[in-house]
Amino acid sequence: MSQFDDETRLSPAGEGRYSGRVHSCYNIGGNPNGGYLMALAVSALRDRLPQHPDPVSIGIHYLRPGIGDEACEVQTEVIRAGRSVSTARATLLQQGVARLEVLATMGALGTGESGTKSSEADAVQRLTIPMPSMPPPEQCVARSGAAQGITIALLDRLDIRLHPDDAKPGLLPEARLRGWIRFLDGREPDPFASLLFADAFPPAVFGLLGVVGWVPTIELTVHLRSRPAPGWVLGQFSARDLDDGRLIEDGLLWDSTGRLIAQCRQLAMLLKRS
Amino acid sequence: MSQFDDETRLSPAGEGRYSGRVHSCYNIGGNPNGGYLMALAVSALRDRLPQHPDPVSIGIHYLRPGIGDEACEVQTEVIRAGRSVSTARATLLQQGVARLEVLATMGALGTGESGTKSSEADAVQRLTIPMPSMPPPEQCVARSGAAQGITIALLDRLDIRLHPDDAKPGLLPEARLRGWIRFLDGREPDPFASLLFADAFPPAVFGLLGVVGWVPTIELTVHLRSRPAPGWVLGQFSARDLDDGRLIEDGLLWDSTGRLIAQCRQLAMLLKRS
Repeated sequence: MSQFDDETRLSPAGEGRYSGRVHSCYNIGGNPNGGYLMALAVSALRDRLPQHPDPVSIGIHYLRPGIGDEACEVQTEVIRAGRSVSTARATLLQQGVARLEVLATMGALGTGESGTKSSEADAVQRLTIPMPSMPPPEQCVARSGAAQGITIALLDRLDIRLHPDDAKPGLLPEARLRGWIRFLDGREPDPFASLLFADAFPPAVFGLLGVVGWVPTIELTVHLRSRPAPGWVLGQFSARDLDDGRLIEDGLLWDSTGRLIAQCRQLAMLLKRS
Repeated sequence: MSQFDDETRLSPAGEGRYSGRVHSCYNIGGNPNGGYLMALAVSALRDRLPQHPDPVSIGIHYLRPGIGDEACEVQTEVIRAGRSVSTARATLLQQGVARLEVLATMGALGTGESGTKSSEADAVQRLTIPMPSMPPPEQCVARSGAAQGITIALLDRLDIRLHPDDAKPGLLPEARLRGWIRFLDGREPDPFASLLFADAFPPAVFGLLGVVGWVPTIELTVHLRSRPAPGWVLGQFSARDLDDGRLIEDGLLWDSTGRLIAQCRQLAMLLKRS
C-alpha cells in the first residue's frame, strides 16, 4: 500500500462515522495541508458510496486548522443516492471540534479513452483547455520551504518541480505558477491524488507579491474531470482577484497525456507575515 | 418591498427551520431558476446569522428540480459562528423531499469605497479583472425564450440584455456570453441579487453549440467580492471545458462602476434536446 493510501485510511465506526488519524507528514509549517485533509474526509464518502467511488465535484469550507499526528473522526451523511451521481456531506473533527465541512457529488469518472458516453450535442464531443508548454521536470526547480522560512513535511511525500520562470517570488508581473507534481514513493495519480495536488503548490500570489505569509483557505472547490493517466501531473495556478484581503486562486491539472483532469478554485485570506 | 424581496421571504418555524414558498415567476420553462432557489435558501442563513448577513462564499449542490408555486421548507444549521465569518448549511425541501443543499460562508461585504480593511501586503491592495467593453443596454438584445422554444417567466422579473455579438446561438467560435442585467421593478442590486444574477443568463455554451436543450446545474459556487453599486450589472460567462457530458461554466459580474462584485462557476450536465 502506498504512503498516501495508508495515510488517508479510515475505519468504519458505525452510523456513518469513521475514525482515523491526521498524519503530520503532509504539514506545511505547523498545519496539515488542506488538500490532504480534503482527501481524508472524502475517502469516508468513497466507503459510504461504493457505487460512486470517485469525487466529481467537491466543495470544502475550512473551519479551523487541523492537528497533525492526532486522531480524527469523519461524520458522513448521504443526502441523495442517485443513479449517475450521489450527493453527500462529511465533517472532519479532531478533539471533538469540527475542522472542515465537505459537500460532495460523487460518481464514476471516465478515462477519456473510449470517447464520451454522454448524450451531448453530436457536433462537439469535448471542449478543453490545452496544457501549457513546460520544460521537463529535470529542468524545473524543486519546491522548498526556504523562501517561506518554514519546514514543509509535504515535500517528503510529494515531488514538486516549479517552472524556472515562475519560481521567483515577488518578481513576476502577474500571480501565476506552473509546476509538475507526483508522489515520491511511485504511487500513480488517481482522482484522490488530484484532490491533494489541487492544494499542494505554493500560493500563486507569491510570484507577484513575494512571500507574504500564511494564506489560509476559506473555501476550496475541486471539479474532477477525468481519471489521470500514470506519470507526472502538471498544475497551473493563477490569482487575478484580491479584494478586501480575500483572494481567489484558480487551478488546472493535466495528466501526462495532456488531458485536463481537474479544475479547482479557492477563496483564501491573505495575511501579513507575522 | 420589492418583488424579489417578497418572493424570497421566509418565516421562522422554530429550531432553525423556515417556511416559505417557491414562486413560479422565476421559472425557466417548467422549473424554478437555480439562482432564485439559491437566494431563497441563503435568505434563511441571513436570518440565522444577523452578525454576518452577507453571502461570501456559497456552494450549492442541486439534488432534484424545485416546484414552482409550491410551499418549501429550509432547514439550517450553523456549523461555526466566527468573528469575521460564519459557516452554515441549509437544505431546501418541497413536498418533504430535499431539492438542494447549500454550504455557505457568510460575513459582511465591503463597498470598496473606504479602501481595504485587511492586513494584506502593502504593495498591492487589490488585484482585479477589468470589465469588458460593452455597448450600452439600449444597443443590446433582450433575452427571450423564443430560441429555446420555452416560456421564461424569469423575464417578467429581470431585464436581461445580451451583447449583440454574442446573441447568436451556434454561430460563435467559442462559448461566451456578455450581457446586462437588472430588476424590472427598479430594485437595486445587492449580494442576494448577485446570487440570482449568477444563474440568470442563457448557458454560454449555446453560443458555440446552438440551443442544445436543458443544461441542468449539478453544482454552483458563487464568491461574492463586493457590495454592488446601484444600476445595471454586467455579466460575462464562458465555457471552455466539456468532458463526458459535464460542462464547467465560469461567470463574472461587475457593477455599474466597473467593480467586480462576484465570481461564479457551475458544473452542469449537457443533455440532448428531447
